[in-house]
Amino acid sequence: MQPIVVLVSPQLGENIGMTARAMLNCGLTRLRLVRPRCPWPSLVAKSSSAGADLVLDGATLHDSLADALGDTHRAYAMTARPRNMAKTVMTPRDAMPHIQDHITTGETIALVFGAESCGLTNEDISLCTTILTAPINPDFSSLNLSQAVLLVAYEWLLTSQAAPVPHTPLKKGTLPARKEEIYGFYDHLESELDRTRFLRVPEKRAEMVRNIRNIFERATLSTQEVNTLRGIITSLVTGR
Amino acid sequence: MQPIVVLVSPQLGENIGMTARAMLNCGLTRLRLVRPRCPWPSLVAKSSSAGADLVLDGATLHDSLADALGDTHRAYAMTARPRNMAKTVMTPRDAMPHIQDHITTGETIALVFGAESCGLTNEDISLCTTILTAPINPDFSSLNLSQAVLLVAYEWLLTSQAAPVPHTPLKKGTLPARKEEIYGFYDHLESELDRTRFLRVPEKRAEMVRNIRNIFERATLSTQEVNTLRGIITSLVTGR
Repeated sequence: MQPIVVLVSPQLGENIGMTARAMLNCGLTRLRLVRPRCPWPSLVAKSSSAGADLVLDGATLHDSLADALGDTHRAYAMTARPRNMAKTVMTPRDAMPHIQDHITTGETIALVFGAESCGLTNEDISLCTTILTAPINPDFSSLNLSQAVLLVAYEWLLTSQAAPVPHTPLKKGTLPARKEEIYGFYDHLESELDRTRFLRVPEKRAEMVRNIRNIFERATLSTQEVNTLRGIITSLVTGR
Repeated sequence: MQPIVVLVSPQLGENIGMTARAMLNCGLTRLRLVRPRCPWPSLVAKSSSAGADLVLDGATLHDSLADALGDTHRAYAMTARPRNMAKTVMTPRDAMPHIQDHITTGETIALVFGAESCGLTNEDISLCTTILTAPINPDFSSLNLSQAVLLVAYEWLLTSQAAPVPHTPLKKGTLPARKEEIYGFYDHLESELDRTRFLRVPEKRAEMVRNIRNIFERATLSTQEVNTLRGIITSLVTGR
């Protein structure tokens, strides 16, 4: 009953180790690594973790962010830079009561962090439900990876003891669809739009796809809604 | 008009560098080092600071904590361990409004952190006004030095400016579509779904329509997004 930390393409074992330490400082133990660019398992990570073996030993490896998020219901992407994307932006502090609430209703939540050098790509962010931005010094806003994890994990820790306020846009008793269902819907829609040449201009395709996904990320679809939307695509395509 | 960070006998240049980075992330620039146990100035610190030269270059060296605190009015000692001392203990979050107040009235405030291996001694703490303790996981409570500084500096940052992060799901300068545009999209979609007989069961039609509309109401569509979705419908229907 706690969020999962997802690191996308981390470069330094040391930062993974310090991330594990910061997580465990705040009571978090679930770590996923997407295509780490350092050897794994990593002795450097271990020695930097100050004994957070529990976190490192349980970390799982993933080929893609979509794979790492597949069984989650909502993903929060941490980024310092404004992205001008059609997606809700919250501070970690403001987001945590919501995250807490979602977890209480049985959702699996991911907290997603990008690589040391350049953070998350716009494509990564298009797979996430919400953007987290800490109101850091705008003239020096690049946080060390493990520091970014600590800021969010610490907010989680402080909020996890407070009483949750129900706040869900879905029908009572309904969880959001798992991300793999959502991504399956995206594949379905985008492959049809490729076929109909709606996405025919190559230099615009990536942005159009991101913009379309952002619409549905904001909507936080349930499984039934995903099925409805897929039914709608099929119905429109086949004319029956 | 900001607190001074004091590191007592830091051992690793890397942690001093990461401390400088975390400080500048949060807008803090005043650093004092008491008997560092690494060479100083430190190239390792510089390379770990990610460009926080302003902090490192201005750091001053002191022979004793008493010397480093001499010109301050209040000192807050960060420690994870309970000390059983007759001294006020506060969380960083709870302390910050007080610290902010004191600074506003012209006081000079120090935030004091101990060495990586063992933290502050009881003697160090006896020189400080108040103890700061973050409510970290009691089974794994040792924070990395620079992480401890970040936790406190970040609380300072949030308290000092309450810097708002924009909170809109739409792109900058974009208003949500007017409702008549939204409803036009609903009409378009539903008339196509009537034609393809997706909505053919009369007693279910009203609820299905409501459910579909709810998806898009949650998404708070912009005008451009409405147009994109209408383009998608047309493209799927016509196959081009």
